[in-house]
Amino acid sequence: METMSTVTGLKSSGDVLFLMLGAVMVFAMHAGFAFLEVGSVRKKNQVNAFVKILTDWSVSTIVYFVIGFPIAYGISFLKPAEELLGKTQGYDLVHYFFLLCFAACIPAIISGGIAERAKFWPQVFAGAVFAGLSYPLFESLIWGKNSSLLQGIFKGIGGAEFHDYAGSVVVHSIGGWIALPAVLVLGPRMGRYIQGKSHPLPISNIPFLALGSWILAVGWFGFNVMSAGNLEKISGLVAVNSLMAMVGGVLAALVAGKNDPGFVHNGALAGLIAVCAGSDIMHPLAAFVVGCVASVIFVYGFHYEQEVLKIDDVLGVWPLHGVIGSWGGIAAGIFGQKALGGMGGVTFVSQLAGSLSAIVFALVSGFVVYGILGKTVGIRLSQEQEYAGADLSIHSIGAYPEDHVR
Amino acid sequence: METMSTVTGLKSSGDVLFLMLGAVMVFAMHAGFAFLEVGSVRKKNQVNAFVKILTDWSVSTIVYFVIGFPIAYGISFLKPAEELLGKTQGYDLVHYFFLLCFAACIPAIISGGIAERAKFWPQVFAGAVFAGLSYPLFESLIWGKNSSLLQGIFKGIGGAEFHDYAGSVVVHSIGGWIALPAVLVLGPRMGRYIQGKSHPLPISNIPFLALGSWILAVGWFGFNVMSAGNLEKISGLVAVNSLMAMVGGVLAALVAGKNDPGFVHNGALAGLIAVCAGSDIMHPLAAFVVGCVASVIFVYGFHYEQEVLKIDDVLGVWPLHGVIGSWGGIAAGIFGQKALGGMGGVTFVSQLAGSLSAIVFALVSGFVVYGILGKTVGIRLSQEQEYAGADLSIHSIGAYPEDHVR
Amino acid sequence: METMSTVTGLKSSGDVLFLMLGAVMVFAMHAGFAFLEVGSVRKKNQVNAFVKILTDWSVSTIVYFVIGFPIAYGISFLKPAEELLGKTQGYDLVHYFFLLCFAACIPAIISGGIAERAKFWPQVFAGAVFAGLSYPLFESLIWGKNSSLLQGIFKGIGGAEFHDYAGSVVVHSIGGWIALPAVLVLGPRMGRYIQGKSHPLPISNIPFLALGSWILAVGWFGFNVMSAGNLEKISGLVAVNSLMAMVGGVLAALVAGKNDPGFVHNGALAGLIAVCAGSDIMHPLAAFVVGCVASVIFVYGFHYEQEVLKIDDVLGVWPLHGVIGSWGGIAAGIFGQKALGGMGGVTFVSQLAGSLSAIVFALVSGFVVYGILGKTVGIRLSQEQEYAGADLSIHSIGAYPEDHVR
Repeated sequence: METMSTVTGLKSSGDVLFLMLGAVMVFAMHAGFAFLEVGSVRKKNQVNAFVKILTDWSVSTIVYFVIGFPIAYGISFLKPAEELLGKTQGYDLVHYFFLLCFAACIPAIISGGIAERAKFWPQVFAGAVFAGLSYPLFESLIWGKNSSLLQGIFKGIGGAEFHDYAGSVVVHSIGGWIALPAVLVLGPRMGRYIQGKSHPLPISNIPFLALGSWILAVGWFGFNVMSAGNLEKISGLVAVNSLMAMVGGVLAALVAGKNDPGFVHNGALAGLIAVCAGSDIMHPLAAFVVGCVASVIFVYGFHYEQEVLKIDDVLGVWPLHGVIGSWGGIAAGIFGQKALGGMGGVTFVSQLAGSLSAIVFALVSGFVVYGILGKTVGIRLSQEQEYAGADLSIHSIGAYPEDHVR
Repeated sequence: METMSTVTGLKSSGDVLFLMLGAVMVFAMHAGFAFLEVGSVRKKNQVNAFVKILTDWSVSTIVYFVIGFPIAYGISFLKPAEELLGKTQGYDLVHYFFLLCFAACIPAIISGGIAERAKFWPQVFAGAVFAGLSYPLFESLIWGKNSSLLQGIFKGIGGAEFHDYAGSVVVHSIGGWIALPAVLVLGPRMGRYIQGKSHPLPISNIPFLALGSWILAVGWFGFNVMSAGNLEKISGLVAVNSLMAMVGGVLAALVAGKNDPGFVHNGALAGLIAVCAGSDIMHPLAAFVVGCVASVIFVYGFHYEQEVLKIDDVLGVWPLHGVIGSWGGIAAGIFGQKALGGMGGVTFVSQLAGSLSAIVFALVSGFVVYGILGKTVGIRLSQEQEYAGADLSIHSIGAYPEDHVR
Repeated sequence: METMSTVTGLKSSGDVLFLMLGAVMVFAMHAGFAFLEVGSVRKKNQVNAFVKILTDWSVSTIVYFVIGFPIAYGISFLKPAEELLGKTQGYDLVHYFFLLCFAACIPAIISGGIAERAKFWPQVFAGAVFAGLSYPLFESLIWGKNSSLLQGIFKGIGGAEFHDYAGSVVVHSIGGWIALPAVLVLGPRMGRYIQGKSHPLPISNIPFLALGSWILAVGWFGFNVMSAGNLEKISGLVAVNSLMAMVGGVLAALVAGKNDPGFVHNGALAGLIAVCAGSDIMHPLAAFVVGCVASVIFVYGFHYEQEVLKIDDVLGVWPLHGVIGSWGGIAAGIFGQKALGGMGGVTFVSQLAGSLSAIVFALVSGFVVYGILGKTVGIRLSQEQEYAGADLSIHSIGAYPEDHVR
């Protein structure tokens, strides 16, 4: 009797610890987003990158608490603390915390695309709409309380539900495909393309870029492994598949990107983005291949975007999170098959359909929100502000104040 | 039978893992203290900041092991390893490790106030006294083996014991209010105030400041959540309240501090400091408010301290940890009430009394220790040493040696 | 009945979580290796340090998955995902992940010794051989499937098996003693010794060095504590002994190294390297002493290596990981004794024998692999490449691109 209640207690506290650790790991990833952007922009926009990411995180926390999580899962937190704690030691609260970390990725992803020329508050507002409304709406359709509808359609078309274990599509592709219209509406930075010719602007700091990539890669194991939701559902396969896709991404980027440190460190992320969807159903060697392909997509996609299409997406978040996120969704439909050593239960058609639906949803969301903001309050710094840099223009201080004394 | 022994084993190893993870997370926060200080001082004092924090940590480890923990909890470790391990897999040891991380915050907090002009060894010695004697003494009165006395008084005055779940008062306010006399005895840095006029000295590196803030914020979830002490007592409410107070701190600092990155990144910490005491009994929205108020206190308190009172507290640790720590203690008495959605069991008067007792204790400790050191061995670098910087004066090397070659 | 299956499930998922957390913590240490090297080399070789560490990690992941882990433990992963998951939720997979993190330390350790003048791909190839073949072979003899042979010999000689709880010898001494021949074959950097006179080359960035040391120290608690392998075997003693050795290392380095920040931050690592072997059987105060001795070895050993023997081992990895790793193996045979407060079960002679066997194994491995590479493809950059720096020569970009525009 006593044993049983101890076991129930252990299970319940184990679940809270499990999700809390996952939440903290993914929360830490936001420091990674910040450093990745800080290293990839010019020095005059570093402070802005930090403040943007932290502000977006904070605003997302509130809107997802009050609006987003209730939309996606039908659970409201507007009741006394004692009821929030309930008999599960506050499991719903840590579940919210964990999933908030996903929702807050949307503005963090976009931030890297629109860097160095966006106005501060319109950007924060857009992030709030995405994290509090658009993302939770799509989330509810795939993972949440309204999933029967859309999943029913996918099942009808492809013979299986759309499978996205940890968000290649729901999180990364949504973020990356929203960023594309944002970047298009905003237009390129001053001096990026002159008379149709490309003039890449130098990045400032590879150690910070590398730090960002490392923080993201480490936290990603929380992103993927804790997507189990409960401790009892933890899977060592998810951990090792994440690892394998990451190293596939690193090695393919090293070769395709000719030893370039930016490609190598973003390559790790490319692999991790691609593996989220099928990390629970692929064989580790398949995950390695998925990661390799992801990095090849990134290296060539980045070049195509920036040099051929002439889209000034500073951190390349559309190819990185958008296109590779879609690739991850589709890849789960290929390498999740039993014939390729996977666990089965997925189909190529359903995965393709789910991935395409996210692209449509994101493009519409992005064009509507950024379109309206662009035509009303305006989303771009003035030429003088952009020239001076977002740090001095918005924050009245540079990243290295001592260096500018005397 | 076998099931029961497995359950007992799981419970016991779960507790050790729980506290070990908490300890490691709070240990990591000390890297955060280091980078926050490194970013906030001038380049000529960065090396010193790193070595100070690591040395204080190391000395605290020893004195708290041999003296402090036994004072606070009556448990001695001077017995064979086998007995230390006992039947609990060394629970007392990880409990010591976790609480050491709190004790070691005292010198780490002070370090930020006295930066850029303190002598090395007297400062280390003072830290040893605080972590090994003063702090454990107060700890024993609130949380430890002597808590019946003082808690009895609080109960008599206010109708409830003084509640400080994770140390807004016991840790942060003690640290911050000890730092005030330390800074006063030490006096301002050369050139900080000239003929009564304030000349703010430039900080060196906002990316390092931001890194420090991020490390602290991430580790803080160990600080608060693992204050449960046992896995079975974990509470998702504590995690989400910490989050809410942090984002409240960020957003209020953003507005009150006019987008200043220093205020924004310290604002996250302000919220987290304030929420420690009542994180287990408040509603998340109340925690948000507590965090907002904390940041307003910091932004205006910092200005008042530095510009009106003309106290050269480099990182503003007195308003940040001291005043906001006290605010956290008091806030638990307000927002912990059932009428405001809280869990109840606290009173405003007891919380006020407990918070005030810490202020008195800390001020006395600080003036005595720094007063004696100041009058005997001296605590301040010579003018030449301060001008050259603590790095060259104490450590014979600057933070960027290659830059000074040729 | 239901309780029993819940308990079995908890135990199994607890084990997977335990090792996964350990693996992630040790994976993060590789960012520490990177920053430690980045801070310790000149700016023109920082990018290369990052890419080397990440590439070595990635290659190690593959070779240890396909070759190394099967060699050491006889478990192959070349079967369908479903079988990999099995009834243990993929325990073998996370076990592989955790132990990979150890194997990948070998190239990471060597990397610091041969920095600033090694060719890229031969170095990657050598790392693959060590992580995929040499290390797993030795691992199998001490911890793995072939341990009966060598351990039988040690038992015959010394009366007990060779005890290396977390790899002072198996990991660190192997890495450090392989690095010695690598450094000798490679020869010193241009300008390091001119006409037999030592000209220390300036390090670039102490904040990055400190960051690396902090990341390593934090992750080390995963390295040592999760070496238990199963949650039920967790030991609080291991955690606190690691802590004690680390602070012993810091304090002894502070004194012996005359406040030098490089020695202080490497001193933490010295203590941690030394304590791995006996962290489960020593008393905390003994661990402190072991850490102090380790740092004294490092401070004087580094000087002796670089100034007397004139070996250009950039980060001092031979004294740090090699010699101190061996000291850790031997120290377990001294301070693990019951007479010194330890848990017993070890003998000085067996520990000495085991430690010496690793030295022989590592020296042979290192001379063979680097000797062959040196005589065939060559392992050293051309003079022009070394002068220009590995960053521009190999990666076509410097660490701070913006600073070199205009």
